[in-house]
Amino acid sequence: MATIRDVAKKANVSVATVSRVLNNKGYVSEEAQKNVMAAIESLSYTPNSVARTLYNKSSGMIGLVLPDITNPFFPELARAVEDVAHTYGYTVVLCNSDEEVAKEKKYFDALKQKYIDGIILTTSSLTSKDYDRLDLPMVALDRRIGDHIPTVVSENKQGACEATEHLLAKGCRYLAHLRGPEGVKTADERYKGFMEVVEQHGVEHVVLNAEFQIDKAEAVAQELFTTYSQVDGVFAGSDVTAAGVMKAAHTLNKRIPADIKLIGFDGIPLGKMLVPALSTVEQSIYKMGALSARLLIKQIEKQPMASMYYELPVKLIARETT
Amino acid sequence: MATIRDVAKKANVSVATVSRVLNNKGYVSEEAQKNVMAAIESLSYTPNSVARTLYNKSSGMIGLVLPDITNPFFPELARAVEDVAHTYGYTVVLCNSDEEVAKEKKYFDALKQKYIDGIILTTSSLTSKDYDRLDLPMVALDRRIGDHIPTVVSENKQGACEATEHLLAKGCRYLAHLRGPEGVKTADERYKGFMEVVEQHGVEHVVLNAEFQIDKAEAVAQELFTTYSQVDGVFAGSDVTAAGVMKAAHTLNKRIPADIKLIGFDGIPLGKMLVPALSTVEQSIYKMGALSARLLIKQIEKQPMASMYYELPVKLIARETT
Repeated sequence: MATIRDVAKKANVSVATVSRVLNNKGYVSEEAQKNVMAAIESLSYTPNSVARTLYNKSSGMIGLVLPDITNPFFPELARAVEDVAHTYGYTVVLCNSDEEVAKEKKYFDALKQKYIDGIILTTSSLTSKDYDRLDLPMVALDRRIGDHIPTVVSENKQGACEATEHLLAKGCRYLAHLRGPEGVKTADERYKGFMEVVEQHGVEHVVLNAEFQIDKAEAVAQELFTTYSQVDGVFAGSDVTAAGVMKAAHTLNKRIPADIKLIGFDGIPLGKMLVPALSTVEQSIYKMGALSARLLIKQIEKQPMASMYYELPVKLIARETT
Repeated sequence: MATIRDVAKKANVSVATVSRVLNNKGYVSEEAQKNVMAAIESLSYTPNSVARTLYNKSSGMIGLVLPDITNPFFPELARAVEDVAHTYGYTVVLCNSDEEVAKEKKYFDALKQKYIDGIILTTSSLTSKDYDRLDLPMVALDRRIGDHIPTVVSENKQGACEATEHLLAKGCRYLAHLRGPEGVKTADERYKGFMEVVEQHGVEHVVLNAEFQIDKAEAVAQELFTTYSQVDGVFAGSDVTAAGVMKAAHTLNKRIPADIKLIGFDGIPLGKMLVPALSTVEQSIYKMGALSARLLIKQIEKQPMASMYYELPVKLIARETT
């Protein structure tokens, strides 16, 4: 395989000149440029990307830091990021942080060492200052870290309002909300949307915390159906939470949707696989991932961004559980 | 930030000597070694991993090429690969090939350019020769590419035999198998296991192709239940296929498990989320991913492997659908 030295020799120029041609940086005479291009062609030279990394301090790689790829919200997001990155000639390094501070920091060190070009974050374990210290292009996806970091989220509150209105329109009179973890922005926004609608309509309601986890949701829903037998509508904070509610209803012989109407949030593929199929508020998960990758690449390539904050619309999908 | 040149200057040695110390390669006098280590410490020098890549032709990165991370079989596999890689100081580059030859080749070019240390393949679009040409450490995961490539699979045929026996033990007398795509080894093995048991017991049976896809499975199962109303037991080739069967049964008012007993294959989290919870043959998905990563790293680090072929045991999990 031809090296950059072979090209320089054949073109009768220095290695630095070949580098300047390859990277479109610095002054190169027209003659040298022509000789270098001819040498590259005659030798079938492929620029070595690791050497280019050293010269450019750019690796053509972006990091995707997420809590856990086995959480069914993330595979589609990862797929979208990777699809867009691939189109632009970037590769994606996958990092599962489990939201652990130490693990996240270790990843950042490793990624910086490899001259990663930028990072998409769907975690927010560290402080905004820690992220700033990295001094790398970044995008916050489904999280908010700080105003100076481009952010892509869904209309969580608006979606929650629509879900709650939907249950009321279907005749529910006593609503329950199984919310996600307190302090997690998406969960808080959905809770706010629910509360706004029930208070506005003066509807009886109860709120319990199910942590976005199926086992926790099943246990909480069993308690809910036993203690509050009047509940006839449930807004689950996520589709996985809703799956737990369905299991609890099955155990207690509550029929969905005859006895209890149920709506989730997210629009992950699971919802369609459940029987009865789950009504939900669908986020544009793929679009969120794709937009984040595009915003990151724009920063890396120093192109202007139209906005620092994107809130993507959600869509109510009424299936069989309401 | 200190560079390797600063270290060389302070230690009064050449840059090549510092490299030899950092990489533990070639002869270095004891005195030089001591001076270099002292210089590294006093300057808080962190070896630059990109420069090390050039010297070592090693990047500390491994590629994971899979068809599509949104297929629910792959997130757990990816998680396992990444967990093990992270422990050994490697990062993982994620590639979704969609089983397209052109896309797979483009990834390989990109990965070689970045001096990727090795690749885990869960696709097999190319010929064995194409993979050999890459001249990289490789592991075939859930696929078989060739005898000279270390391979990790499940006991697919054995698991299929157990699933079929389980349906018979539960009193089923007319069995259906919704198989995966022909030519895909895992699907073929499961089909063979099913056939062996029904032929051995002289049981009436029907086999249809559902391609491991939920929509296809739902359509095929509707046809099955309409045309073969005697069917009282279904062995679905995957858990996703089984989810499609459940939807078809629901539409046609067939009760599971009262009218039809159903068992899947894979043991993905979906099975537990379904109502009724899905009986299945559980593969050790996490173990398969972890073992593959370990085998790859052994090759990269030129350590001996105990075997070139690993077939991991499967486990029948009887839940509510049988």
